[in-house]
Amino acid sequence: MRAVDLIRKKRDGQELTTEEISFLVRGYSEGQIPDYQMAAWAMTVFYRGMSARETADLTMQMASSGDTIDLSSIHGIKVDKHSTGGVGDKTTIVLGPMVAAAGVPVAKMSGRGLGHTGGTIDKLEAIRGFSVELAKEQFFRQVNDIGIAVVGQSGNMTPADKKLYALRDVTATVDSIPLIASSVMSKKIAAGADAIVLDVKTGSGAFMKTLEDSIRLAKAMVEIGTQVGRQTVAVISDMDQPLGYAIGNALEIREAVDTLRGEGPADLEEVCLILASHMLILGGKASSEEEAKAILLEHLRSGEALEKLKKMVAAQGGDTTQIDNPELLPQAEIQVEVLAERSGFIESIQAEEIGIAAMVLGAGRETKDSKIDLAAGVELRKKIGDPVVAGEALAVLHFNPEHREGKGEAEQRILGAYGISETKPPKRPLVFALVTKDGVKRFL
Amino acid sequence: MRAVDLIRKKRDGQELTTEEISFLVRGYSEGQIPDYQMAAWAMTVFYRGMSARETADLTMQMASSGDTIDLSSIHGIKVDKHSTGGVGDKTTIVLGPMVAAAGVPVAKMSGRGLGHTGGTIDKLEAIRGFSVELAKEQFFRQVNDIGIAVVGQSGNMTPADKKLYALRDVTATVDSIPLIASSVMSKKIAAGADAIVLDVKTGSGAFMKTLEDSIRLAKAMVEIGTQVGRQTVAVISDMDQPLGYAIGNALEIREAVDTLRGEGPADLEEVCLILASHMLILGGKASSEEEAKAILLEHLRSGEALEKLKKMVAAQGGDTTQIDNPELLPQAEIQVEVLAERSGFIESIQAEEIGIAAMVLGAGRETKDSKIDLAAGVELRKKIGDPVVAGEALAVLHFNPEHREGKGEAEQRILGAYGISETKPPKRPLVFALVTKDGVKRFL
Repeated sequence: MRAVDLIRKKRDGQELTTEEISFLVRGYSEGQIPDYQMAAWAMTVFYRGMSARETADLTMQMASSGDTIDLSSIHGIKVDKHSTGGVGDKTTIVLGPMVAAAGVPVAKMSGRGLGHTGGTIDKLEAIRGFSVELAKEQFFRQVNDIGIAVVGQSGNMTPADKKLYALRDVTATVDSIPLIASSVMSKKIAAGADAIVLDVKTGSGAFMKTLEDSIRLAKAMVEIGTQVGRQTVAVISDMDQPLGYAIGNALEIREAVDTLRGEGPADLEEVCLILASHMLILGGKASSEEEAKAILLEHLRSGEALEKLKKMVAAQGGDTTQIDNPELLPQAEIQVEVLAERSGFIESIQAEEIGIAAMVLGAGRETKDSKIDLAAGVELRKKIGDPVVAGEALAVLHFNPEHREGKGEAEQRILGAYGISETKPPKRPLVFALVTKDGVKRFL
Repeated sequence: MRAVDLIRKKRDGQELTTEEISFLVRGYSEGQIPDYQMAAWAMTVFYRGMSARETADLTMQMASSGDTIDLSSIHGIKVDKHSTGGVGDKTTIVLGPMVAAAGVPVAKMSGRGLGHTGGTIDKLEAIRGFSVELAKEQFFRQVNDIGIAVVGQSGNMTPADKKLYALRDVTATVDSIPLIASSVMSKKIAAGADAIVLDVKTGSGAFMKTLEDSIRLAKAMVEIGTQVGRQTVAVISDMDQPLGYAIGNALEIREAVDTLRGEGPADLEEVCLILASHMLILGGKASSEEEAKAILLEHLRSGEALEKLKKMVAAQGGDTTQIDNPELLPQAEIQVEVLAERSGFIESIQAEEIGIAAMVLGAGRETKDSKIDLAAGVELRKKIGDPVVAGEALAVLHFNPEHREGKGEAEQRILGAYGISETKPPKRPLVFALVTKDGVKRFL
């Protein structure tokens, strides 16, 4: 078998066999197939796409290219959740405890943030002492004992995906639906998921800017799940503005805790309830969204969900007094309001710009090696639909003196991110569509 | 400027500017742009094509990427000829002297053979003592003195094309019309041509298998010529069987000499007259094909064309007694006839297979480093349209004892290459179309 022949075959619109895809992925991962051949192949995939079978094969080859996690020692159906990345997305920290309280085991590996999107692992580290590195046995034991553990990725997971992603990034082959779908799914499968709930963000702050692209991506991922025997459901949710009001690590922990107390922002609570409902259904703890939501709301109102978070924080060495009293979480020395320059209604908030504003204040990483400031971030005061009067605060910047030079840029980006109109914009749903193996259900 | 942005721009169907193409070609040639980005770009070009302007820019960037030849010290319009590669193609050796005799200077750089196609330089080296390496001044002086010199490529010409071609070869991006066209034209322009006559071979033995593809390629090359101010004409000629009867270096020299004596195969003479006519027109020595042909035939019949060949051989140190008496050219020790297994009419001859048969007998190079046997080759006895009786010779293998092991394969390939039918196939023209800046003239 020669890579050039497989590139040509794909180039001319033929389907590659399972053996051929294995040859490409293994060969690339192990260094026998050079970057330039894989780049040419990725570009043919950009134009030609891949069949569901090819995409599933690629996923499984990447999933098994490195370490894989065997969650079989954890009791129950392990349902993983994945978000395609957004701004202010602290859903894992809210819905993890909710789902665990309802009896679905949460054995979650999460990532760190890069660029304008944050990472769950960074956010959890805002809690004093919280350790995101657990030995495998400890991780399993904790999930069996208290129902939940959230750790960072360790070991050498999906190296083929990592290598291919880095190559795609510099060859303009990132935005290919089957390549994105297989990248996401390979990581979930390597992490041991039995079933997967996907949160596909759509809008200005998301990777997928349009609803139709988001649905296409969701369908591709659900199709992979079906092909490889992992029941998969995708929720298409709004990322045309940040989720909740807080962007920045400690700020988001605080908002997550507020939400588990029943005092969080309505949009965040709603998205968490919807995603968690699907996790309950896939986990066999409910048979409909209504039933699932009722169960979850009960655990939320009774305080059991918050209790789960505290148990997890305690088990992972974190300071639970910061959960009881979020004022104790790291706080930035400087807080500056960004004031509206005109009156009207908030029509749009470019989430990506808000993410970048938080990043320049120290909350995010510009490059993999940047150090982050856990206290820094942006707190929104206005969201879409809110009325605003010139001179009123749109947002508050939180930063420490060493990031003072980012203030001007953050202010400008936030002012630029807010669109203000004369009339109140129509209300729109938080969730636009649900994609399951049975099809697409649209809410818009 | 970043390569990834230019790949994306092209990928999405936009035209790259002259500066952007320069950035890519220079960057790649100088090693700042890696193979994987150029491979992704080449694949986008495979799918998206390139505008005439982009193709011309690519051509000029590759032409100027290394050494270029300035032919201005040679008097007259320098018309170069290029064939897209065929089997048994000895046209340069026939038409060069014809054209020179008619007063158009021939300052030709030629290549060596690889795979199933031969190279003019190898063929000329079948003449004892013939030197294909001349110092630049000597090369110019010889053309001014006797009107013709044929030398091998020297120095570092079109390195960007060489590097890109090697990459395309392993990334399934060879068969892209604008990439092929710019590769051919860049070499002609670097070699100093004022005007160019292209011989685009079509059929089983050629790179372009169909007439329509050949016409597309011809149009792209003529368009480049127009864009960069080099008048270009392309002749689409038959390569559904080898040209003439001889395949192999010394065998082809002999056939070329026969043709210059007026005793060569009709197809070879006709193709040479047509190509030479266009060279005369572009060189300003005739105003129509008819006029040009009459001039050329006169020089052929008067012996002046053969005299030019002898003068060139003498000037380049070759043994002219081998031209006077081609029996003195290297001859293989063994000659074996390949006999027809059935009777009928020759319907087709897979030229590529004949080329490979000659190669396995030692006449060609399997890899760049193979040594060739100048005496070896294949002499056809039958061509398309000829009647044949079972047991009659289709061809004669010429080889020396050290290539005896190739005999079986050569025989099998030749038997397989010949298609024999019960009825005489219709006669078809040797030249299918003529492509000029004014359009396409079809003869089929």
